[in-house]
Formats: sequence, C-alpha cells, structure tokens
Amino acid sequence: LWLPAQALVRNMSSSDGPTSPYTTLAISRPVESLTHVELHRPEKRNAMNKAFWSEMVDCFNEIADDQDCRVVVMSGAGRMFTAGLDLMDMANDILQPKGDDVARISWNLRKTITKYQETFSVIEKCPKPVVVAVHGACIGGGVDLITACDIRLCTQDAWFQVKEVDIGLAADVGTLQRLPKVIGSRSLVNELALTARKMFADEAKSSGLVSRVFADKEAMMAGALEMAGQIACRSPVAVQGTKKNLLYSRDHSVAEGLNYMATWNMSMLQTEDVMKSAQAAMEKKSPKAVVFSKL
Amino acid sequence: LWLPAQALVRNMSSSDGPTSPYTTLAISRPVESLTHVELHRPEKRNAMNKAFWSEMVDCFNEIADDQDCRVVVMSGAGRMFTAGLDLMDMANDILQPKGDDVARISWNLRKTITKYQETFSVIEKCPKPVVVAVHGACIGGGVDLITACDIRLCTQDAWFQVKEVDIGLAADVGTLQRLPKVIGSRSLVNELALTARKMFADEAKSSGLVSRVFADKEAMMAGALEMAGQIACRSPVAVQGTKKNLLYSRDHSVAEGLNYMATWNMSMLQTEDVMKSAQAAMEKKSPKAVVFSKL
Amino acid sequence: LWLPAQALVRNMSSSDGPTSPYTTLAISRPVESLTHVELHRPEKRNAMNKAFWSEMVDCFNEIADDQDCRVVVMSGAGRMFTAGLDLMDMANDILQPKGDDVARISWNLRKTITKYQETFSVIEKCPKPVVVAVHGACIGGGVDLITACDIRLCTQDAWFQVKEVDIGLAADVGTLQRLPKVIGSRSLVNELALTARKMFADEAKSSGLVSRVFADKEAMMAGALEMAGQIACRSPVAVQGTKKNLLYSRDHSVAEGLNYMATWNMSMLQTEDVMKSAQAAMEKKSPKAVVFSKL
Amino acid sequence: LWLPAQALVRNMSSSDGPTSPYTTLAISRPVESLTHVELHRPEKRNAMNKAFWSEMVDCFNEIADDQDCRVVVMSGAGRMFTAGLDLMDMANDILQPKGDDVARISWNLRKTITKYQETFSVIEKCPKPVVVAVHGACIGGGVDLITACDIRLCTQDAWFQVKEVDIGLAADVGTLQRLPKVIGSRSLVNELALTARKMFADEAKSSGLVSRVFADKEAMMAGALEMAGQIACRSPVAVQGTKKNLLYSRDHSVAEGLNYMATWNMSMLQTEDVMKSAQAAMEKKSPKAVVFSKL
Amino acid sequence: LWLPAQALVRNMSSSDGPTSPYTTLAISRPVESLTHVELHRPEKRNAMNKAFWSEMVDCFNEIADDQDCRVVVMSGAGRMFTAGLDLMDMANDILQPKGDDVARISWNLRKTITKYQETFSVIEKCPKPVVVAVHGACIGGGVDLITACDIRLCTQDAWFQVKEVDIGLAADVGTLQRLPKVIGSRSLVNELALTARKMFADEAKSSGLVSRVFADKEAMMAGALEMAGQIACRSPVAVQGTKKNLLYSRDHSVAEGLNYMATWNMSMLQTEDVMKSAQAAMEKKSPKAVVFSKL
Amino acid sequence: LWLPAQALVRNMSSSDGPTSPYTTLAISRPVESLTHVELHRPEKRNAMNKAFWSEMVDCFNEIADDQDCRVVVMSGAGRMFTAGLDLMDMANDILQPKGDDVARISWNLRKTITKYQETFSVIEKCPKPVVVAVHGACIGGGVDLITACDIRLCTQDAWFQVKEVDIGLAADVGTLQRLPKVIGSRSLVNELALTARKMFADEAKSSGLVSRVFADKEAMMAGALEMAGQIACRSPVAVQGTKKNLLYSRDHSVAEGLNYMATWNMSMLQTEDVMKSAQAAMEKKSPKAVVFSKL
Repeated sequence: LWLPAQALVRNMSSSDGPTSPYTTLAISRPVESLTHVELHRPEKRNAMNKAFWSEMVDCFNEIADDQDCRVVVMSGAGRMFTAGLDLMDMANDILQPKGDDVARISWNLRKTITKYQETFSVIEKCPKPVVVAVHGACIGGGVDLITACDIRLCTQDAWFQVKEVDIGLAADVGTLQRLPKVIGSRSLVNELALTARKMFADEAKSSGLVSRVFADKEAMMAGALEMAGQIACRSPVAVQGTKKNLLYSRDHSVAEGLNYMATWNMSMLQTEDVMKSAQAAMEKKSPKAVVFSKL
Repeated sequence: LWLPAQALVRNMSSSDGPTSPYTTLAISRPVESLTHVELHRPEKRNAMNKAFWSEMVDCFNEIADDQDCRVVVMSGAGRMFTAGLDLMDMANDILQPKGDDVARISWNLRKTITKYQETFSVIEKCPKPVVVAVHGACIGGGVDLITACDIRLCTQDAWFQVKEVDIGLAADVGTLQRLPKVIGSRSLVNELALTARKMFADEAKSSGLVSRVFADKEAMMAGALEMAGQIACRSPVAVQGTKKNLLYSRDHSVAEGLNYMATWNMSMLQTEDVMKSAQAAMEKKSPKAVVFSKL
Repeated sequence: LWLPAQALVRNMSSSDGPTSPYTTLAISRPVESLTHVELHRPEKRNAMNKAFWSEMVDCFNEIADDQDCRVVVMSGAGRMFTAGLDLMDMANDILQPKGDDVARISWNLRKTITKYQETFSVIEKCPKPVVVAVHGACIGGGVDLITACDIRLCTQDAWFQVKEVDIGLAADVGTLQRLPKVIGSRSLVNELALTARKMFADEAKSSGLVSRVFADKEAMMAGALEMAGQIACRSPVAVQGTKKNLLYSRDHSVAEGLNYMATWNMSMLQTEDVMKSAQAAMEKKSPKAVVFSKL
Repeated sequence: LWLPAQALVRNMSSSDGPTSPYTTLAISRPVESLTHVELHRPEKRNAMNKAFWSEMVDCFNEIADDQDCRVVVMSGAGRMFTAGLDLMDMANDILQPKGDDVARISWNLRKTITKYQETFSVIEKCPKPVVVAVHGACIGGGVDLITACDIRLCTQDAWFQVKEVDIGLAADVGTLQRLPKVIGSRSLVNELALTARKMFADEAKSSGLVSRVFADKEAMMAGALEMAGQIACRSPVAVQGTKKNLLYSRDHSVAEGLNYMATWNMSMLQTEDVMKSAQAAMEKKSPKAVVFSKL
Repeated sequence: LWLPAQALVRNMSSSDGPTSPYTTLAISRPVESLTHVELHRPEKRNAMNKAFWSEMVDCFNEIADDQDCRVVVMSGAGRMFTAGLDLMDMANDILQPKGDDVARISWNLRKTITKYQETFSVIEKCPKPVVVAVHGACIGGGVDLITACDIRLCTQDAWFQVKEVDIGLAADVGTLQRLPKVIGSRSLVNELALTARKMFADEAKSSGLVSRVFADKEAMMAGALEMAGQIACRSPVAVQGTKKNLLYSRDHSVAEGLNYMATWNMSMLQTEDVMKSAQAAMEKKSPKAVVFSKL
Repeated sequence: LWLPAQALVRNMSSSDGPTSPYTTLAISRPVESLTHVELHRPEKRNAMNKAFWSEMVDCFNEIADDQDCRVVVMSGAGRMFTAGLDLMDMANDILQPKGDDVARISWNLRKTITKYQETFSVIEKCPKPVVVAVHGACIGGGVDLITACDIRLCTQDAWFQVKEVDIGLAADVGTLQRLPKVIGSRSLVNELALTARKMFADEAKSSGLVSRVFADKEAMMAGALEMAGQIACRSPVAVQGTKKNLLYSRDHSVAEGLNYMATWNMSMLQTEDVMKSAQAAMEKKSPKAVVFSKL
C-alpha cells in the first residue's frame, strides 16, 4: 500500500509552488489519509513572513477538521528547511509597534506575540500527529516550529540554531517553553539558547531532538512517508487519543495524567476499532488490512 | 555478603512456579532484605491475565509493610519478560463491558481502568526501590509496568513495544503518562507510542529507558542482585526517603520539591543512621558493615 | 577580544587564595563582563564548611546586582572540584541540632535545611547565566551545586557522586529536585541517587549531565571562557530574559510558559538592543561588535 | 457626564430587536465607552438557541478589539433574564449526536461541548469588565453565563436555578467550574447544583452571588450604568490590567499571582495614565475629569 | 413519595444500636435509594475511637459500590453530633508511637496520619452525595468529618469547634485543608483554627459553613430527608457526575475544570437519562415520575 | 493573666513615637509573648513612605526569630489605620524609574515591585499569627497589608478602599492576589477593585473581610488583645504549624495539602506539648495553665 515510497516522494515534489489560498505553504495528499505541508518560499529560504503566521493557523485548523487526513508530514522546499523569521517583512510589527505610550505599545506587542505563539500551538491542538522532516538549516522560528511537532527527523546535513539572542531578544514563540521538554539534557538546551551556536545532525540525534537521521532528503522523505504510513493505517481513535494524552501528560503530574486518561478512555474504549483490531491481531493480519471508520 | 552472585542467581530460579497465594507471581528472598518478584506464567509468555492485576496490588502492598524487605528485584520467568495483556482472558472486561446505556458502560469501564492503573501505581507507592530486569520481549502492559519501576536493566536481546495502538486504543495504564518522564527524547516517545514499532536494547540504553545492558539473562540477574545489594545495605531511612522525594520531585516544581524535602528531612535527619553512617565513613568502613534498624 | 584564551586562563589562576571578604571563594574578573567564582579551599578539597554556605549567598546576590557582570564561570581550585559537605565542620548543625523536644529540634532543622537550600537556589535566582567547569571529583553537595548552574562542562577525569545515602540521609539541598530535570534518563537518576555509585565523564556526557567534555582542566577553562564570551557579548536583555524564562518553563506547563513569556516580552521587545542587533546582522557584523547598555 | 441615568436607561431600551448581524443580541452604546449587550429573544424568554452560542463569541471578540469600549453591561430583554438552553432548537446537537460508534459520537460531542464552553469563556478573555444585570428568572445556561461575568447585580424579583440535573446531565459549560469560585459557601453551591432548587435575590446577595439587589429593573439598569460609568472613566490600562490579573489570581497560588503581576506591571506602570491620575488626585479633580488615551 | 417525612424520620431512629459488622455506625435505608449513616456511640458522645476510623472506610467503600444507594444522610445518635477524637482509646497511636529512633517513629506516625486522613477522604471519593445533619456539639474530628461532606445542615443548638490547638497539635485529618475551601471568610477560618473558639449555628449559617439551620433535630432530619429525596429522584448519571466535577473544580483552575468536564460528558451525555428527563420536562412531569436505571 | 485588658490597651498607647531603629513603626510588648506593631506616622495618616517598605521587612524578620513572641497585633496610630502609599515620598521610584531604554526601565521597575511585594509577603512568612485591628480609613496599600494578615478586626467607623485604579495602575503588591482568597464573593471583589468604591464596616463583616466589628478603637484593641491572648497561651508548635499549613492549603489542592500536613505532623506530633495539653484537658485546666517551651 505504502510503496514504492520513492515514487510517492516524487509525488510530493512541489514544483508547482504554493497551494491556493496559501502563498507560503504547498499542501498535497501524496497518498490516502496523509497530508503533506511544505514550507514553500524557496527563493526566500522559506523565511517566515507575515502571511506565513496566519496561513499556518488556517492550514492546521483545516487539517484538524479534515476527516480524510490522519497524519501530517511537514518539510521545506528548496535548499533548506527554513531561515526563520523574515526580519524585513516583519520589522513593522516588532520594531515599530503602535501605541500612545509604553503601556499601550506593550499591550499591542503582547497581542502580536500571542498571535504568533498560536501559529505553532495550532500544531499541538491539531489531533493528527505531525512528522516534521528537516534538511539543511533550521533557524530561529524554525526551531520553535519543529518543537511543536510530534516526531522530528533530519538529514545528515541538517543543522539547528536557536538564533533569537543574536537579534537581541528572548525567543518568545515556543522554543524556550518546548525545547526543554523535547530533549533530555538541560545543559545543552541552555547552551543552545544562550550562545546561539549551531547544532548538527549527530548531536541532534544523540540529544534526542530528532529520532532519526537520514543520508539525504530523498531518503528522509521516504522514511517520513513510511513512518507516517505506519500511523495512518492504525485506528484514528487510538492514534489521536494517544497524541492528545501524550500532550496532556507533558504538562501534568502522573496522577493527573492517569485520571484524565481514565476519563478519556471510558468512552473511547467502546470503539469498534478495538474489536476490529483484536480480531485482525488474532488472525495475524497487518493493521493495514483493517478498515476503520473516519474520525 | 552479596557474593557469589551467580550462586544467588541460581537461588532465584523459579522452577517451582508461582508462590501461594499468587498464581501469576513467584516471590522469593534470595538474600536478606531483598525480595525477588517474578512474573511467572512462562507457558503463557507471562501475559497479564485477570488474576495478575489484583495479585500485583496485594503483592506490593505486602512488600510495602514488610520491614525485612529493603529492595525489590523484578523479572520474568521463561523466554521473555512479558507479552503484555492476556487479551483472551480479559476480553470480557474490555470488549463486553456491562451497563444499561453508554453512560453506565462508561462508568463501569472507568472503574475498571482505574483499578488496572492501580496495579502499577502500587509499585510507585511502595517505598522500597524496585529494580526491574527485562529479557526478551516487553510488550504493551509490560512497558506500563517497567516505567513504574525505579531502575531498568535489560539483556542484549531485549526489545520493547508500546503495542496499544495496534489493538485500537490509547495506552491507559501508565505508558503515556510515565514514558515521557522516563526518557529524554520526546520525538522518540511519540514515535514509539504512535507507530508501535519495536525498540531494541541499544536504543533503549542510548535513549535512557534502561541504565544498563547485559550480555544475557544470567549476567543481568547477577547485575541486578549486585545493584540491589548496594541499595539494601544502606540506611533504609535514606533510601526510602530518597525514593519518595524523587517521585515527589517528578510531579512538582523545584521550589515545591525543596519545600517538601525540608519538611521531610526535619524529622528524618534525626535518625541514628546518620551518626552510624558518618562514623563508618570516618573509620573507612563500607556501608555494608553498618547495621541499621528496620523501618 | 576573547583571545588568546590561554593567557586569560592563566589570569584566572587563583594562586592568591580567597578574595576578601570571602574565606572559601576566590572572585576575579579575567575579562570584561565575566565574573569567575572559584571554590577555594584546595587543602580541604574545597569541602563545604559553614562559611561556604553563607558566602555563596552573599556572592551571588552581589553578582545579581553587578551591572558589569553578564556571565559567571565557576570552578574549583586544586585537585578537584569539591569533596562535598565538610562533615567535621558542620557536624553541630546536623548531628546535634538544638531544641527542647523532637518538634522543636525538627523546627530548627527545617530552618537550617531551608537556609542551605538557599545557597544553591541563589544561583538560579541570579539572572546572569552560570557556566560551571568540573575537574576531578564532584561529590555530594557538589552535585547539588552544579545542577543549579545553567551549563555544565567537565574534564575527562571528572566523576560525579550523589553521596548522601552513604551518610544515612536523603539529599536535601537540591539534587533530588534538580537532577531529574537536568538529565533525561530517569533510570539513571534513580540508580545514582539510590546506590551512590560514581558516574564518569563519558556517561555524564552521554546522559546529558554535561554538554561538553575536555581533555584537561586548562582546555576546559579555555572552553568555558570562550562559551562565556559568546554569552557576554550578546544583549543582556536577551540573555537574562532567556535564563529567566527557561527556568520558568521548567516548572510550568507549556501554555503557562507561553503566557508568561508574552507578558515578559511585551516590554522587553522595546529594547534598543533589538534594533542594534538587527542592524549588525544586516551589516554582517558579529554580535561582539555591538555595544549594549548595561542592565 | 453619566447623568441623568434614567434618561440613559430609556436609551438602552431595545424596542427595535436584535442588532444586525446578530439575531439573538441587541448591541447599543447608550453612552461613550460603554457597550450594552442585551439578550434579545423576549418571545422565547431569551432561551439560548444555536445562533446564540456563536453570536456571543463574535460579539465579545469584537468588543475585545473595540478601542471605544471600556466596559460592558449585559441584561435580558422582556420578562426575564433567560430561561437557559433552548432545548427544542438544540436537541439535535445533544440528543442525536453523529458518529459511527460510541467513540466517534463521543469525539463529536466533546467538540460540541468545547465550542459551547467557549461561548462564556470569551467573556473572561475579553479584557473589558462585564457587569451583568439580572431580572426575573436566570436558569441553567443563564447561571453558566453570569458566573463568567465580572460583577453581578439583580432585582428583588430575580431567581437563579442550576437546572442541569433536572434534564439528566452534569452542567458542562461553566457552572460547576465557576460557581464555587464565585460564592463562598461550598455547602450552598453543592445544594444548588445537586437539587436544582431555586435561589432568590436575598440569598443571592447574602451568599455573594450578586453584590447588589435593586427594587426593580429600571433601578437596576440605572445602578448598572452608574457602576459601569465609574469603571469607564478610569484609566483603561489600570482597569483592564486589574481584570486580567484578578482572573489570573483565581487560578494560581498567591506567589504565582504576585510574580505574574510584577511582570505585567513592569511595563504597564510606564503609562502616562499614572502621571495624569496622580496629578488629578493632587489637584482634587475627579477621575472623570481626566482624558486617557484609548487602549 | 418522600412523605410523610416525619414518619420516615421516626424510621431513622436508631434505638437498636450499631449495625453489624459495625460497632460505631448504625446503617439503615429509611426510604428507597437513601442510606442513613449514624454515628452511634451515644454513651461516649459519638467520640471517634479506633474502630470508628476503619469502619468509616469500609462503610463508604460499600456505599460507593451499592447501586441501590443514590444519596447518603449522616447524623449523630444521642445528645450531640460528636465530641471528636476519643483521646483515651487512641492515646497509644498518638502519644506512644513505635519506632527505634525519631525517624522511624516519624515514619510510623506518618502512616497513621495518612490512614486517618483516608477516613474522611473516603466520603469525597464516594460518588454519592452526602448530606450531613449536625445537632449539638461538633468538635475536633467532627469538623474534619463534616467538611468532607457535600451539604451541611444544623440545628439551632449546634456548635462547632476546631479543637486541635487545644491539645497541642495542628489539625491533620482535613480541617486545615478543607475548611478554607468550604467557607468564604479567611479571617474567620484562621480565627477558629488558631483560637479554638466555638462557633454557633447563626454564624455557621452566615459564614456559609451550613446552608440551612433548623429549629430542632426532628425538623432537621425531615429537612435532610427531603433534600436527599430531591437528589435521589434525579438521574444518578447527572448527580454523581455533578459531585465528581464539583470536587475536581475545587482543586483545579477553571480552564482545567472545563477541559475535564468536556471529557467527562462526551460519554455521559449519551445516557438515556437525558432523553427521559427532557421528555418528562416537556410533559410537565416531576423528576420523581421518571425511572432511571441504576448506576 | 490577660486582664484587665483595658489597662493593657492603655499600655499599648504609643505616645512616644516610633521605636528605634524604626521611623515608621512603634514596637512594644504589652504582655508576655505578644508583640504590638503600630504603624506610627500619625501626622502623615500613617502613609507608606520609602522607609516603611524596608522597615516592615526588618521588623517581621526579627519577629519571626524572636522566641519570646508568639502572636502579633497590628494597628495604626492616630486618626486612621493608613492612607496607603505616600505618593510624594515615593514618586521617584514609580514615576521616574531609571534605565537607558524601555526594557531596562522595566527591568528596574520589576525589581522595585518585587521588593515592595516582599514587604507584605514577609507577614505570611512569619510563622506567628498576625491579628490586624483597623480603625478609620484603610486605603490602597493598607488593603494589600491587611489581606496578608491572618485575622482582621475593625471598628464601626472603619472603611476600606482598593484605591489603585484611581491612580492609573493595577494594584501590584498583593490585593489582587489575596483579596479574592480572603472573602467569598467574587462579584464584590471585582466591584471593589474596578470601581475603587469604599466599603464600610458592616459590609466588611458580612462579606467576611473582617471577622469582628467593635464599637470603637478602645473596644477593638481590648478584643484584639484578648483574641491574641487566646492564641499566645496555646502550644506554639500547634499554633505556628496551624498557620503554616493554612497558608499551604490556600495555594494547593486538598490532596496536596493533606500530604504536606502528614509530612509536617510526623515530627510535630512528637512534641511534649501534646502530652501536656492532653493532661491539662483531662484535669479540666485551662490551656493558660500550661507552660510550653519556646519555639
């Protein structure tokens, strides 16, 4: 079903540019149940301009409601994943905020920051798992973005940079909140955020930022597709309930998490998917052979 | 005292089957102060049947009150650690829950889930440290079980699988709550839980799920015994206070944890064990040479 | 500016002993904006005596208010980083606490513990990042100390030991609270705290306790200086805001952390440093070429 | 400025019906800076139909962004405040939810509940204070609504009823969460929610649900206008910052609340409003004499 | 159905003493669906002896599982509600705790306190609402007990006393934790707990500790019966879900409470009770006319 | 012992002005174990000037360590309790904060606010209960102050005003955090904080802000003395443990509070005070007849 991956990967090539109504994202469905979201401003190194921040919200809200989508793969078009903030395009918002006095400027800045934070939080709120595949540079806002995704993959030539201190500010759209919950070494998180040094693929793997490294982009995209396929072929009740509860657990004590889980599953266990899956398991069938209702 | 470990390990062999009143667990005391709990349904690959869920609770409640036990080693009899849920035996509870309407079925399912969660939470509530030693497969409920233990060891041939999505449900007895607090890489946790792929010993070690890998089961049991011996010979006031506060810290901020710790130790520091230990240290004696009162 | 590091490192040598008014710490400023704090009781293996516990508080409170300091490097004089608690000097406080009955002794012990906890919490409260460089042994209280620092480095010959269970008590000045939030493997944390075994440099690196290992102390100090230099040359508004929000995030959910971050940056984004940094970036200048106001 | 209130109250009369684009709400601006939101389906006793749930969200989002509005007064047209849920109109959503199995129906119901919860949470998220004025009956969803408002007033003939248990469900759009934080007596809260008994104006006042009782609707509307006027004439930076921090405090410890407050005010204290207000105070002028910039 | 209450009240008279297997409690079912639990050691002023602490746990665990019980009324036999702790009977546990040193004594005391706390927490864990009716004195442990109940009633001659400071200890089985969440005035809570003064019925009512005061015990029991009847005749899915979520809300932020509520009701709204209740409401029938399945 | 109160009250008169080294506070010990702290700038209506903010911290830190003090009574000298902030004296700090840009000004303002918050938090941190007695006006900072005290009393002529919105700012030293946890009616809290209206003694009593109202200052001081006497004569282990746990409970869930309480009392129950108190109780002696060791 999911093969040959390489043919699919070629399907995912985004030579046609952004998908209407988006100007910074190319959306496609290379195979059933899987949505591919591609950052697509290659000539600008996929830098995040004003349009990007609201298009992401629209895009993931749509995916959340799309019953035909069970998993998302995200990647970047062109030479790299993303150069981060498009400082030129966004200078107004950040460097010349409006307001009659400091308090009013602050009030407006807070609204702006909150809106930008939502751009990545929307990935977490979307119940479908998001696999992100990074090649080349992933800078500044790019790190904020990928830490909000569920599974991170990269190529051997990828590198990551928490860039914000370099432009005089503390990262405020997610990196400082999510990165420490994404990798295990606190010393490393602090070093990256305070020195803005680059981290390369090997360290990203050994530190746990990514769970797999691939030789090149083509191999990575094939790997991402296969992994996404593993997810898409399973019960959406099981998969999306798993994502929701993993995120709940991150922010709560174990006891709180167990209580919520029990309350969640008291209805979700009544799905037909359990019976279907159990039967398939006993008949030694692959999960891929089971047809689940949409969710 | 603790040697020769290999002789002891042979003592731990559970050829005699489960220990009354248990039908799924074999309990022994290979050496002073150490309780060995063995999953013992080897002909069923130590699958977790109905009896298991309540026997675990009785067993660990008893251990908690047993002043002669200072540390627990847990392992599986036969070819593997555990195949997880015994779907056949438990189908009733899960697939045919009782109740006159959806709400009442949900109410009953919630009680069942909560009861099953308690089966592993009881390991955390037991103040004696639990070292778990895994060989072969550790599937589904097995992962829930080991993440509730304090120290995890495995053999080179061990593998781990968060199996629940494969049977159409989100894992609800602990894995989604504890696994992310047990290993550092969030991307890996998500990958395991969403794809149900197997993780082998090397990745288990590099990701931090286990802290040591051994060549085979015999070597692992010797290692587990030695490590447990290191714990058993130390002050039980120190050891059990350490376990309790490590768990408290997991679920609280650093400031909250420090406050609780200070309140804990305001009495516990008044133990004679400090004086005994300090004296032994100054006399360059091993902790094993000190006799501590029971706790 | 920051070179040649080796000359600087020699500047940091503390042959002259503690710096008045301190008797256990040597304070220096090898280069602009950087404070070097050295544990300096080499003849006592930098063991933590009574004076140490209060001198640390004074020292870091002073650093917090010192606008000329933007980053701190901490290390130990002599053969090792620290042997931990100076049991002889502190026996009174711990082994013979005052009070007319158990409750009153407990009350006094609680005050003592709380005061000692503050000795390391003061490092976190200080908004300037602290890079700690460990060579040789780092035992007991030493582990409490370094887990309160922001970035950890060590030499190839360094080793770490959570020693407290060996003297009959649960570690109560920070290790049990901070170590699990500093490294990713829970099994390893528990093993270290419950068995008091030594952990060597390689495991410290692979587990994430330190983010870099150096061949010897001289190389480490040069590395620490360079890393600190990378931090000191950047906007203090960005750097100190980053430290504060990283710590806030550790103890809060992602949503709470984002909310706090937005409220923090609504004023901090109005700094001139953003404009200065952006300009430098566009002119391809190094951050070191920008002059920032003091904070 | 704010007088004569009775003339204004007559201005607020909503004889013209709902205000486009709303079909259930009449919006007006009886005086500068004040928005009057009236539940306006008098022939249906202001019962909450499908349109209502989304119109409230649109309405309060608009108010949140309307710089000309500094305070909101809410009331009901016709004989009573509201009869609560319009069961007929909403039966579909609640009684015949869609989905292929129990899990999928649950999933859809959860989305619906969450959407309905948002209808009242939007009142809290709106930074402008909301004064609600209740006459006659306030039933079921009406209690959910008013507990999300900031200040509650009522007439002598008003009564309140937590009606949900009467239709076989636990109240799920806010009453069970907010009522206990709004009035002081837990025994009373439980009694109201578990027995669905009516509470009349006097008990509403003595229990703290409302802070004032008026003889009739006209007097109440005049009182509401005057109180709203007191709020509208003050610095919006002060007023809206107060609302935001009061809500933050409700859900956090005192220490957390103080920390957030300090971070909030580090910018907000830099408003010109403080200087203007202080000057007015010293010149013994009323706050109403000061002109503040919009926020 | 529920009348004549006075006859029922006479049914509740407990002239026959404790109900086997209990020695301190008399259990009866005066009417369908209602369990009456009576403290029954009148000759000892219902003082709480050793047996009481464990009998309460057994009693409420049984009630929790008893599908025929939908509501509980609790009261005291004889001249008063309870004199609190039976100091004579319990002196051993508290005044002569066992253990070889201070730490071990502390360890044992902590187990004892935790066990005693469970005696009242079990009331909260029981999903059926508990109406407590107090006459005469309610001292010490009695206050701990009633604050764990859902609805509190009293007679005109009732008085309440937080007695613990009078015997040299801080109340440790619930009063200090629950009383401040049960009544609105913090100043009053502190005064009662710090001075051990008596509070009489009028102040208990005005402060919100009780929601109703009755002339004498007979009137109170009739009132309690009627209120319990109001609860028992409603959908148990609605009632018990309401209790559970009210308690959840007490200990969580509004946002957390709403999230939990939505997850709870996604299954519970699928009950037939909603349809039955809605139909009864439209046909203007009383809730008492509807027959609900057991839960 | 504690009588005649009126003579004592006269002892408390502070005709001699502030007590060295304080310039705004008069400290006395009218009777054993009781410290009287008087706001003493009567000619300035006890307005809070710069000196006041640091003197309060010194004063309460000293009281915390003073074993001869078991309870504190606080009141104001002259015509009123306090007029709040001394705007003239403090204008610099607030209206002309220092710093090179908005971020640096904000940074400094935050330090200032945090320091001011500590002025009242120090009352909570002091383990001795604080009874505050208010006559005449209690404005602005006065409300922040009294909400940090444990028990509030007032005279019939007292009034309270949350004044901050009147000078263009959200109250930031405690009122918005503590007032909602001190009184039960949320609507009233919001009304007071958003409109800055005065609240008089009767409403203060019925809302629970104060627990008693007295005819005049002399009667109030006699009442405060008597109440403080009730506290001072009881076991300090019981009293101070009660204060600490009441405050802990305010900011935690019931389950968290119970856990902390058990850990607290495992040592504190070992006090001799329990035996002494129990013996006195059995011998029908008053608590005042028992001599407790200092704490």
